[in-house]
Amino acid sequence: MKSDTCQPILDIRFRSQVLQSDVAAVRDIVEATGFFTPDEARMAASLVRERLAQGPESGYLFLFAESGRPGSAHKVLGYACYGPIDCADGRYDLYWIAVRPERQGLGLGRELLASVEERVRTRGGTRMYAETSSQQAYEPTRGFYEKNGYVAETRLKDFYRPGDDKIFYVKDLAR
Amino acid sequence: MKSDTCQPILDIRFRSQVLQSDVAAVRDIVEATGFFTPDEARMAASLVRERLAQGPESGYLFLFAESGRPGSAHKVLGYACYGPIDCADGRYDLYWIAVRPERQGLGLGRELLASVEERVRTRGGTRMYAETSSQQAYEPTRGFYEKNGYVAETRLKDFYRPGDDKIFYVKDLAR
Repeated sequence: MKSDTCQPILDIRFRSQVLQSDVAAVRDIVEATGFFTPDEARMAASLVRERLAQGPESGYLFLFAESGRPGSAHKVLGYACYGPIDCADGRYDLYWIAVRPERQGLGLGRELLASVEERVRTRGGTRMYAETSSQQAYEPTRGFYEKNGYVAETRLKDFYRPGDDKIFYVKDLAR
Repeated sequence: MKSDTCQPILDIRFRSQVLQSDVAAVRDIVEATGFFTPDEARMAASLVRERLAQGPESGYLFLFAESGRPGSAHKVLGYACYGPIDCADGRYDLYWIAVRPERQGLGLGRELLASVEERVRTRGGTRMYAETSSQQAYEPTRGFYEKNGYVAETRLKDFYRPGDDKIFYVKDLAR
């Protein structure tokens, strides 16, 4: 078992095609993190549904990290949802990024994010935005963005509720 | 004709129900302002389509200002699109507000906005957000928000493109 967790990236494949089964997979991953409310998990899954119904026109792009190991209990280990920002030139928003808790801390989130950024660059994107909460519970999220080159540019005070600000992170992809 | 434009609000009715014909009406109004690109007008109309397909679950609420005068060339004179912000308590976003150019400057935008705010209060909303560009062309938009009690809280530099920031306006409805 130990040797298995020491080579976490070796058996991972990235997939950008969106499958019907991803609706349940995304809801499951988001819920499993223990980080989000059931409402938020439903919202994350609804973006997959919108993408399946409307295709890339929906504005939602996905990247799934899948286990290539046979017999793996959960095939989809993590995912990211991102897309071009309407009416903005080359700006992209990272809507969701989540990794199953038992696969966290092994670099999978970083790999997912790097691959998303590379895909955005390929599409001519020059800047990524990510938004998160100022609450204590989101310290790991903010740490994740900061470690990956995102800078907290500004915030909206009490955006989510009194005492809970929205922080805007930005990363220039041209650099 | 003159007396007509001096009593602009008298023959106006507000309607929150969304009709199939509003797809074209919204596109037409947004285009007629001369303010937005054809892409932006299509985007505005696509929100009506989303609302028609999914109902209030879409998260998009509308208010239409209609002429009650028989034989009026354009029945829908202006509209607003707004909705609750996901994962935020009592926060609402004003996505669009537009008035046909020949009916601008007569207080119709202000009436629409006041009615939207009243409807948000009735739904338990406590705060409205509106976002706009820092460009010179949007000076009337910013002036409109400021005259109606909105405060520019912060901005994202070069959000839309280099030299074109996104400004976040906020208004507390509890006051």
